[in-house]
Amino acid sequence: MKQLFLIVVLFLSVTTSSNAQLPPLERIEPAFWWAGMQQPFLQLIVHGNKIAERNVQLEYPGVTLKQVHKVENPNYLFVDLDITAAAKPGTFKLRFTKPGAREISYSYELKARNHATKAQGITNKDLVYLIMPDRFANGDKSNDIVKSMQQTTLNRDSMYYRHGGDLQGIIDHLDYLQDLGITTLWLNPVLENDQPSASYHGYAATENYRIDRRYGNNELYKKLTDELHKRGMKMIQDLVHNHIGSRHWTMLDLPSKDWVHQWPEFTRSNFKEQPIFDPYAAQADKKLMTDGWFDLHMPDMNQANPYVRNYFTQSHIWWIEYAGVDGFRLDTYGYNDAGYMKEWAEAMKKEYPQLTFFGETFVHGVPNQAVFTQGNTLNHGFDTELQGVTDFQFLWAVSDLVNGKTKAQDGVTGLYNMLSNDFVYQDATRNVIFLDNHDLSRFFSVTNENIPKYKMALACMLTTRGIPQLYYGAEILMKNFCNPDGLVREDFKGGWAGDTVNKFTAAGRTAAENEVFDYLRKLANCRKQHEVLQTGKLMQYVPENGIYVYFRYNDAKTVMVILNGNDTPQSLATTRFTERINGFSKAQDIITGKEQSITDTISIPANTTLVLELK
Amino acid sequence: MKQLFLIVVLFLSVTTSSNAQLPPLERIEPAFWWAGMQQPFLQLIVHGNKIAERNVQLEYPGVTLKQVHKVENPNYLFVDLDITAAAKPGTFKLRFTKPGAREISYSYELKARNHATKAQGITNKDLVYLIMPDRFANGDKSNDIVKSMQQTTLNRDSMYYRHGGDLQGIIDHLDYLQDLGITTLWLNPVLENDQPSASYHGYAATENYRIDRRYGNNELYKKLTDELHKRGMKMIQDLVHNHIGSRHWTMLDLPSKDWVHQWPEFTRSNFKEQPIFDPYAAQADKKLMTDGWFDLHMPDMNQANPYVRNYFTQSHIWWIEYAGVDGFRLDTYGYNDAGYMKEWAEAMKKEYPQLTFFGETFVHGVPNQAVFTQGNTLNHGFDTELQGVTDFQFLWAVSDLVNGKTKAQDGVTGLYNMLSNDFVYQDATRNVIFLDNHDLSRFFSVTNENIPKYKMALACMLTTRGIPQLYYGAEILMKNFCNPDGLVREDFKGGWAGDTVNKFTAAGRTAAENEVFDYLRKLANCRKQHEVLQTGKLMQYVPENGIYVYFRYNDAKTVMVILNGNDTPQSLATTRFTERINGFSKAQDIITGKEQSITDTISIPANTTLVLELK
Repeated sequence: MKQLFLIVVLFLSVTTSSNAQLPPLERIEPAFWWAGMQQPFLQLIVHGNKIAERNVQLEYPGVTLKQVHKVENPNYLFVDLDITAAAKPGTFKLRFTKPGAREISYSYELKARNHATKAQGITNKDLVYLIMPDRFANGDKSNDIVKSMQQTTLNRDSMYYRHGGDLQGIIDHLDYLQDLGITTLWLNPVLENDQPSASYHGYAATENYRIDRRYGNNELYKKLTDELHKRGMKMIQDLVHNHIGSRHWTMLDLPSKDWVHQWPEFTRSNFKEQPIFDPYAAQADKKLMTDGWFDLHMPDMNQANPYVRNYFTQSHIWWIEYAGVDGFRLDTYGYNDAGYMKEWAEAMKKEYPQLTFFGETFVHGVPNQAVFTQGNTLNHGFDTELQGVTDFQFLWAVSDLVNGKTKAQDGVTGLYNMLSNDFVYQDATRNVIFLDNHDLSRFFSVTNENIPKYKMALACMLTTRGIPQLYYGAEILMKNFCNPDGLVREDFKGGWAGDTVNKFTAAGRTAAENEVFDYLRKLANCRKQHEVLQTGKLMQYVPENGIYVYFRYNDAKTVMVILNGNDTPQSLATTRFTERINGFSKAQDIITGKEQSITDTISIPANTTLVLELK
Repeated sequence: MKQLFLIVVLFLSVTTSSNAQLPPLERIEPAFWWAGMQQPFLQLIVHGNKIAERNVQLEYPGVTLKQVHKVENPNYLFVDLDITAAAKPGTFKLRFTKPGAREISYSYELKARNHATKAQGITNKDLVYLIMPDRFANGDKSNDIVKSMQQTTLNRDSMYYRHGGDLQGIIDHLDYLQDLGITTLWLNPVLENDQPSASYHGYAATENYRIDRRYGNNELYKKLTDELHKRGMKMIQDLVHNHIGSRHWTMLDLPSKDWVHQWPEFTRSNFKEQPIFDPYAAQADKKLMTDGWFDLHMPDMNQANPYVRNYFTQSHIWWIEYAGVDGFRLDTYGYNDAGYMKEWAEAMKKEYPQLTFFGETFVHGVPNQAVFTQGNTLNHGFDTELQGVTDFQFLWAVSDLVNGKTKAQDGVTGLYNMLSNDFVYQDATRNVIFLDNHDLSRFFSVTNENIPKYKMALACMLTTRGIPQLYYGAEILMKNFCNPDGLVREDFKGGWAGDTVNKFTAAGRTAAENEVFDYLRKLANCRKQHEVLQTGKLMQYVPENGIYVYFRYNDAKTVMVILNGNDTPQSLATTRFTERINGFSKAQDIITGKEQSITDTISIPANTTLVLELK
């Protein structure tokens, strides 16, 4: 999440309504739960007109009502349940009573846990594809506009209005994605964002338990995940702990002032990660970083409030258990309360040991990024328990290599140097590497629309350490720079009925687009077939003359990758690489299948990454 | 030490002579030692014609001959002594006997340890001044040329010949240096460099126990240190563990092939620190880094050889004990064997607990630098025991701020960001910070000869964390870029009799030079008087609008430093800084003495560092 695209909505005010018409019991969240979870604690948030005046009762074998908490706003109760292993699936009555008033009751279901695939974790074996759901494909025109919602204008000509993309559109293109070699989808958040403007991006949730109706519904989200699992693919859910939308249901009737961070006047974050780890930081800067609002329409959650913590953490468990998601991407990671995020990670791992999650770390500098990772050696004593991060340092290094601002020699050296710094991580292979996303310039534009350089970068990303991630449309040369025009979030052409071209098909793509599509598809599928490219060890050599050589190897295979960052073809003497090429005499290009000798020299075209399996 | 200036001598060959005229006992090193040292072990290197054919004997209370080692070359013996606490000062005979040959003996002295000041350590209280001894001042014309040495040409018109500067020249200017506010001298190495060319720089030692005769002699070196101590000043000795000169006495009659790293043909280091810590490094690259030669005339010591280790380590103890030096600068730190350097550090600290030393880390990137430091959190399990490093990251950040290639905003942010990364160090206040040295462009040139920017950088260096270090002539605007022309090592004008101007005097300096001299002198003396600027805590704020604000504070005082990186004057609102300025209403400029209110805003001229004591 980045502030750039949100500038247009700065001047909206936070609305809190009086809820005069609030029913005695408006909602309970989570609306249902499961029997047999690892962690017996469950805290319900109960919302209803003066609900705090009522007593709460329940009777169910194995379930105990531990405590009922009142907060500033009498329209809320927080109800602590202890759901022991003895509790069987079934339904019990939660009774809300008050002398002289009619009893209200809620039928609370403990579902049986299913054995469906879920929380598998995202690993080096995966290739992630990020989709902005509003902009990928419109599979259901009937949900384009939901009249009861705040924003009802559909306008494909504006990057700030909704375009109609939805979950059905994604389901309709799973064959396409699977064929391309994708194993995992990451969708920008699909929770309801019932905001009056810019509601398409998903980072201003107004509900924690409900898929935005313009994308479909909870069942359809579960169906999409099921469809992925049927294909052996996975789903990453994008979580935002840090903030919600200004029209989140709790914002319309705040449980307590300290539900979100309050400031005397609207105060934005300083968007600087340094105060978090800087030994010389001022408290004022730290507070601004973590407690300042991400933007006017994005209130900043007060994660020191235990009710907030429980509400968020439980909803994330709920989505795994309900829909079977496999991993999480954690938005604006550094803006959160570090203690809470550690507690959250521990809760997740306790419930789902295979689950993985990675945090967004939109920072410059290896220490600035690595400080947020699990078991890194930077934090004196504090372990975040965060397995992976979005590896922006990889992106900056590859960008410097292709953007023409640096010499080839400096470019490949920067990339080499960045990876040499991996000693600061516990396990940098868990970093998610990428060339672009919804907050960044499309990488084809970064290369100045240079196809060889673009392919060079793609091949590097798919063969070096880490979990590679593509941004939708990368395969069809979608372009544009990250500007307030929002054009890095354009529609995938062909995703809408009536689109004049359909880039989902070879026939709809230009020759250049097909060249890159075919190259990427080949590369992605080669990566799938060659375990060595997923989990093999990495060895890299000091770059010379703008040529960067690294190997992926395991007991079974050795792949030699040669990246020629020069604008001219080069010849590479192979004697330096004895340690890895000893015993091999030939190399087969995994893309073209062509073989060549490696006993003397290897020729590399200008701006090319050769991926050679040694034979 | 940097390779750049050494290019001219690449094509000299390593000379090893047969030493046909070698006497039966040519030398023993160390030539004498002391009774009462902490560490009883002493290993003598004994050199003489076929000395290995002889037996060694000694008799002295408290001293035991533990072992005599022979090596490949029969002209050497390594003799292990155990000098216990019981050994009194005095002299004993080391007898070298061989049946049928005349006995040779050597009168070995154990001196009484003196109680003179020594090994005090260099701390934040110090201001270091680096002198290239050949280029500072010629105090003794009689030693300009020593006819028995390899290089006998004195040529002040060439940067590669000797110019005649010497220790007496430094002694003659101690008043000048003390007046300027200097507390500590660091001289480029002054050990004998009896090389046929470029012998002036000092990094190609041919003796380990002898001051170059063109600088003076051992006694004069001791006198210089004594003179410093009399003034409450200190001496840093520059040590080169990594390499020696190609005409080092041991090179002329190698003890064994593995005395230095041997290669089938001359092989230079790759000068890349990354293979040392890179988890993906090739062994070939690691070996090249640490075992490759620094240059053709600088053989690379094999520090896996225990005789090499002992020879170097003991010589460094010897120089402290003999001359009273207070600290060490360790040249080309990363090129050494890490295990040896740790062993060395432990030996030094055992003998001299107050001693400090800092390593040259000519690298780009905080992890690349911090990995070499003691107790850093980067190295998985390995502790170098190196207290400080030459903080090149400070230099790069300040350079980016003043060189015009970056915007003011980016420049101050880079400086702020660099310091925020200090969490990776155990104690970054031990880093030596500097703007230039003998291997770098003179910083006045880096600023494009912009006096305000130059003063801005100097004030920053003297008020932020770390141990500041100046390069001789910085105070008189000496300039030039680091090029093969060697002009960053020009003579200090006035150091030679007959120089047309004398920059050691105000009258000899231009108005601009006096402006900077006076500014620096004022600043250095203010730093001396204000303990808070030496050891006070640091707090820094997120820069805004190209203005970077930090504080040094302790219980007694608070100093506010405001660095305006902009080319225009700025006004700074002070409300953000409540945490530190609370309770103060005025600020006094420590340079000008002028007072102003801080209740509202502070005006800062363009490209200026204001140093304000809060009142």
